[in-house]
Amino acid sequence: MKALVFDGKPHIADVPRPVPAPDEALVRVRYAGICNTDIEILRGYMKFKGIPGHEFVGVVEEASNQHLLGKRVVGEINCVCGACEYCQREMPHHCCARTVLGIQGRDGAFAEYLTLPEENLHLVPESVPDEIAVFTEPAAAAFRIPEQVEIDADDRIIVLGDGKLGLLAAQVLWLQAKNLVCVGRHPWKLEVLTPLCIQTRLADEPLEGGAEIVVDATGSAAGFSRALQLVRPEGVVVLKTTVAGRSEVDLSLPVINEVQIVGSRCGPFRPALEALALGTVVVKPMISATYPLDEADRALEHAQSGDAIKILLQISE
Amino acid sequence: MKALVFDGKPHIADVPRPVPAPDEALVRVRYAGICNTDIEILRGYMKFKGIPGHEFVGVVEEASNQHLLGKRVVGEINCVCGACEYCQREMPHHCCARTVLGIQGRDGAFAEYLTLPEENLHLVPESVPDEIAVFTEPAAAAFRIPEQVEIDADDRIIVLGDGKLGLLAAQVLWLQAKNLVCVGRHPWKLEVLTPLCIQTRLADEPLEGGAEIVVDATGSAAGFSRALQLVRPEGVVVLKTTVAGRSEVDLSLPVINEVQIVGSRCGPFRPALEALALGTVVVKPMISATYPLDEADRALEHAQSGDAIKILLQISE
Repeated sequence: MKALVFDGKPHIADVPRPVPAPDEALVRVRYAGICNTDIEILRGYMKFKGIPGHEFVGVVEEASNQHLLGKRVVGEINCVCGACEYCQREMPHHCCARTVLGIQGRDGAFAEYLTLPEENLHLVPESVPDEIAVFTEPAAAAFRIPEQVEIDADDRIIVLGDGKLGLLAAQVLWLQAKNLVCVGRHPWKLEVLTPLCIQTRLADEPLEGGAEIVVDATGSAAGFSRALQLVRPEGVVVLKTTVAGRSEVDLSLPVINEVQIVGSRCGPFRPALEALALGTVVVKPMISATYPLDEADRALEHAQSGDAIKILLQISE
Repeated sequence: MKALVFDGKPHIADVPRPVPAPDEALVRVRYAGICNTDIEILRGYMKFKGIPGHEFVGVVEEASNQHLLGKRVVGEINCVCGACEYCQREMPHHCCARTVLGIQGRDGAFAEYLTLPEENLHLVPESVPDEIAVFTEPAAAAFRIPEQVEIDADDRIIVLGDGKLGLLAAQVLWLQAKNLVCVGRHPWKLEVLTPLCIQTRLADEPLEGGAEIVVDATGSAAGFSRALQLVRPEGVVVLKTTVAGRSEVDLSLPVINEVQIVGSRCGPFRPALEALALGTVVVKPMISATYPLDEADRALEHAQSGDAIKILLQISE
């Protein structure tokens, strides 16, 4: 099969089709999304070698569960052992022995086929088109925030960052609290939120602090520092993006203000799929371009250019 | 009156005795403790000028509440407005208009007299000697941790740091969870915990990670980084000491592991006083030396030498 392979640098190659393990399904990938994590991986993050890509929608071609055959699915990316301390504690996505689709020890979605444990798959409702369903994984990451942080309807929330994750977090949190503002550097990205009546602000405009919850989805150390300045005493800062390498941070401020900082990663697929199906979370305007797998190099370039919110790869029909 | 005054450098001076405001008491200071925050202040922290010192025990000489007169007291250090958003939300120690004894906008305890709002004062039980009562403020800071973090009896807890705050935090948390180890660089400091049967470990010895709760009381950025390595996924890191300036931190680890980081500052005086009265928290072996106020320069030098856990100033009898 055709795949984008990363072994120091990314290139299209013809590789053997993966063979599913007994509890796994073989999925023919239709669409895959390029995530910032993929870009970081190409820069050396996680020291990953193989086929990257973890956001996808596809069709099941082989599975032991007959109900899956021929169905459109999305899939949770953490493949877990079920036996370790964290699996036993119902924290499977922290499984000590996990592999992670396209990120850690397991080939990913920038290929014609992938395999995943059947238990990781979720059926996509018929009403959700492929280009929307491919956003399930990042939308689920946004839905992780209300799992971790108690949100009151009258909380003031600031979301820093107008990348895909910032725009998704703003929409997901806005479902629970309307006093929310999303702050970014790109008017054309923030415009995604305008039809939803979600407040936006440019990063260099003045902004009142004292927020109950600040989500840092900037992917920069400067964003984290700004979050610490904008959150109220005893408020919560959600760290939603990883910054590779070491960052300079003033740690006295969160101590004096007794701020709670919460790292946040993968989230629940069900509410994400439901929100995409119901249109309560809107992702279509985030699609900046779609490329065939053969043009993955151009797609990756576009994704890194700053001119895109979300770049998709169309891998099969 | 005699006082240690800091105006760029510390010196003993004769200054006017403070005049209490209508809601304030005049307290004759008996003992004051030198805290790391005082040392940081002498290095420029908080840009404080005036009389430092915020750990004290003293006797009330003037007060509108007659029950306070002649009584031994300790005092909460945050003096608050009662009217601002944070006071109204019952978070008075984050009052926007607060002054803080010997730290921010208010002369402190390294003097023969200080003033504090009467509502800040707590009577010291007769059974608690002065040299023990002077530990109430730092012990209260340790008791802040169980107010912020839910602790289960079978949680594994690691306390990093064998300074006064580390040793106090270890004792306070050990009251709730026995699977606790305090890690430090000084065997003679860790020995304070040995008679209490609290496990200790030298910082360069190997230490198993995966703790539910890690308290960083090292006062160093390296301590925070180590805490992030030792805490389990979805565990809690309590930031208990301030590191002046900016620190280099790898922020991807707390995101991947979804760690919760909690800044922690001043705490409740009542459980602290009770623990000191009952001997459930033991502080006497932490007293490295006691100096008269006249020798405050030597006392400060000793406190900075690394050869001391706690240095006291005896200011009056």
